[in-house]
Amino acid sequence: MSRRIRRTPFTDKAESHGVSGFTVVNHTLLPKGYQKTVEEDYWHLREHVQIWDVACQRQVEIAGPDAAKLTQMLTPRDLRSLKVGQCFYVPIIDDNAGMINDPVLLKLANAKFWLSVADSDLLLWVKGLAVGFGLDVEIFEPDVSPLAVQGPKAEALMTDIFGDQILDIPFFGFKAIRMFGNDQVVARSGYSKQGGFEIYLHGSHFGNELWDLIWKAGEPHNIWPGSPNLIERIEGGLMSYGNEFNISNNPLECGFEHWCCFTDEVSYIGKEALKKILLSGPVKKICGIKFDGPKTTACTVPYKVFSESMELIGEITSAIYSPRLATNVGLGMLKYNYTETNQAVLVSTSPGKYLSGTVSKLPFDKRS
Amino acid sequence: MSRRIRRTPFTDKAESHGVSGFTVVNHTLLPKGYQKTVEEDYWHLREHVQIWDVACQRQVEIAGPDAAKLTQMLTPRDLRSLKVGQCFYVPIIDDNAGMINDPVLLKLANAKFWLSVADSDLLLWVKGLAVGFGLDVEIFEPDVSPLAVQGPKAEALMTDIFGDQILDIPFFGFKAIRMFGNDQVVARSGYSKQGGFEIYLHGSHFGNELWDLIWKAGEPHNIWPGSPNLIERIEGGLMSYGNEFNISNNPLECGFEHWCCFTDEVSYIGKEALKKILLSGPVKKICGIKFDGPKTTACTVPYKVFSESMELIGEITSAIYSPRLATNVGLGMLKYNYTETNQAVLVSTSPGKYLSGTVSKLPFDKRS
Repeated sequence: MSRRIRRTPFTDKAESHGVSGFTVVNHTLLPKGYQKTVEEDYWHLREHVQIWDVACQRQVEIAGPDAAKLTQMLTPRDLRSLKVGQCFYVPIIDDNAGMINDPVLLKLANAKFWLSVADSDLLLWVKGLAVGFGLDVEIFEPDVSPLAVQGPKAEALMTDIFGDQILDIPFFGFKAIRMFGNDQVVARSGYSKQGGFEIYLHGSHFGNELWDLIWKAGEPHNIWPGSPNLIERIEGGLMSYGNEFNISNNPLECGFEHWCCFTDEVSYIGKEALKKILLSGPVKKICGIKFDGPKTTACTVPYKVFSESMELIGEITSAIYSPRLATNVGLGMLKYNYTETNQAVLVSTSPGKYLSGTVSKLPFDKRS
Repeated sequence: MSRRIRRTPFTDKAESHGVSGFTVVNHTLLPKGYQKTVEEDYWHLREHVQIWDVACQRQVEIAGPDAAKLTQMLTPRDLRSLKVGQCFYVPIIDDNAGMINDPVLLKLANAKFWLSVADSDLLLWVKGLAVGFGLDVEIFEPDVSPLAVQGPKAEALMTDIFGDQILDIPFFGFKAIRMFGNDQVVARSGYSKQGGFEIYLHGSHFGNELWDLIWKAGEPHNIWPGSPNLIERIEGGLMSYGNEFNISNNPLECGFEHWCCFTDEVSYIGKEALKKILLSGPVKKICGIKFDGPKTTACTVPYKVFSESMELIGEITSAIYSPRLATNVGLGMLKYNYTETNQAVLVSTSPGKYLSGTVSKLPFDKRS
């Protein structure tokens, strides 16, 4: 640890709750877990409510007369329907249509946006474009640190604290709620499929106070400190930038075709490159893969995936054993011709070892 | 560990040598040490030779007709005298003159450069500018992974392998040496003050072979695996991006005034902002600070620094006990009026605890 790898407003609390370790996202600490196994944590997340320090989801603020224009330039997703108070998941691509990030975009005002970023310095890309195109915008990282409340009891917990106004927040919507003498953005969102909220704390010095507020209200709901859970994330088909895809991949490969707009009215960087890829047809695609064999606990090096005729067809980049589905589950990119549901494949978790698997729909469920 | 946090061509070797842990730089693993204490490692580095996996120093390649123009746009340092085969340490600033990175720049050809980057995605800034300004360049991260050979016996080791051509490489110069069927860049450089070389391995799959070549030739020279050593780095006054400075700091504060050019013939982004800062006078400055008290082993949270009249004047961002100088040594930014050598200060390593200290010249030595 050093100043280079930043602590968050909630790191003290994470430590006092016995965090087992950290990983690094956006030069910032992300807790890995707290005294439960990944499987125990998974079941708790599915049944109760958890508090997560996800302050590593840093914000890139874009504000000023050209903010809306620049924001649309960043993404193939059509932003014309995005309203103030709404969140959009947006692929961000470069001029070759390579994925640079996949943040959640929040429209705070007509000329003010936040990009809540995955693990790359998106700030530098946005600033570089603004300087190069001579746009009238301010771009910076505000003092905003998301704290997530995730799990089926999250709504009850949040309502206990903030009242029925919480119920008015739709999925991927947000609202400013008065807290600590400031308007604080509260969104119904988060990096799990169990439902919940993210509080975008503005003002680092309120970190302990916010954590204590949530924790105390959570006790009757069996709250536990947590973090994105690998089993739940993979089962839910939630992608992770740097794991499932990176700058060498285009959004069509990532399954983001619904968020790639080709109408003439919408312009963005990389549109021509993306159009070419669309017209020539996709070469590979991310899919889910179930596979047999011993319980997988991690995938620190990607697993190679082969066809039944032993052709190398791709790799699995995230994998774990799902106790609920009683099989190993993985996410990975395969040659397009092999991505039909139920396609048989072979997964090599180590050299010379081949486990039989099948392509699965995402999110994973009991049937496919 | 996951694919997001990248292994290097040398990670297998680091593990087989018993690496004690890793930190993360540029989404890539950097070994922390090998079975020696920081102090044992320090003495070894000063007396013998070490092999370091510094593949986390990723390269941003800029190539094409506008490469030289774009490269000069990135930095306040005058690049007109930079020759092919030379390295320059270059501050990189944004339009507000905020530090974005402080890489080593290598001029490979008149229209081909590498930036060997510190911990931020400089690639995105450079690409954003190129797109915005419509420049004719290609910008990408090549398959190049630096391996460092550091310490007073590095030259003897390298000469044993590559012969006397090594002696022709001046400090911060480089040469292409034939290896593994390819031209490999070998520079006299590295993140220590003990002398040595960095081999910019082109071709990840040669990682084991290169490591073994160095290791075997190093055995008669008492080689040991290492990594940037905190004692040696601080004593030597080597800055670390993200620790001593970040985007909120300008290069004049960082002591880089000799690399800030204001002549009309040289244009770069942030020049106007930097000129204003120069004219209004610097507000703070990085300096060395020696301080008393128990041996400091780390500085995970910056230490506040006060004047003798208890005015908060700055903070120390990296610190450790120097066994050679028999005092704690730190690097930090202080209000400009307090940065004269021998200025008395108070260092607060924890609330309510004040240790007496003095401002010191950099690099630290026995006298000041």
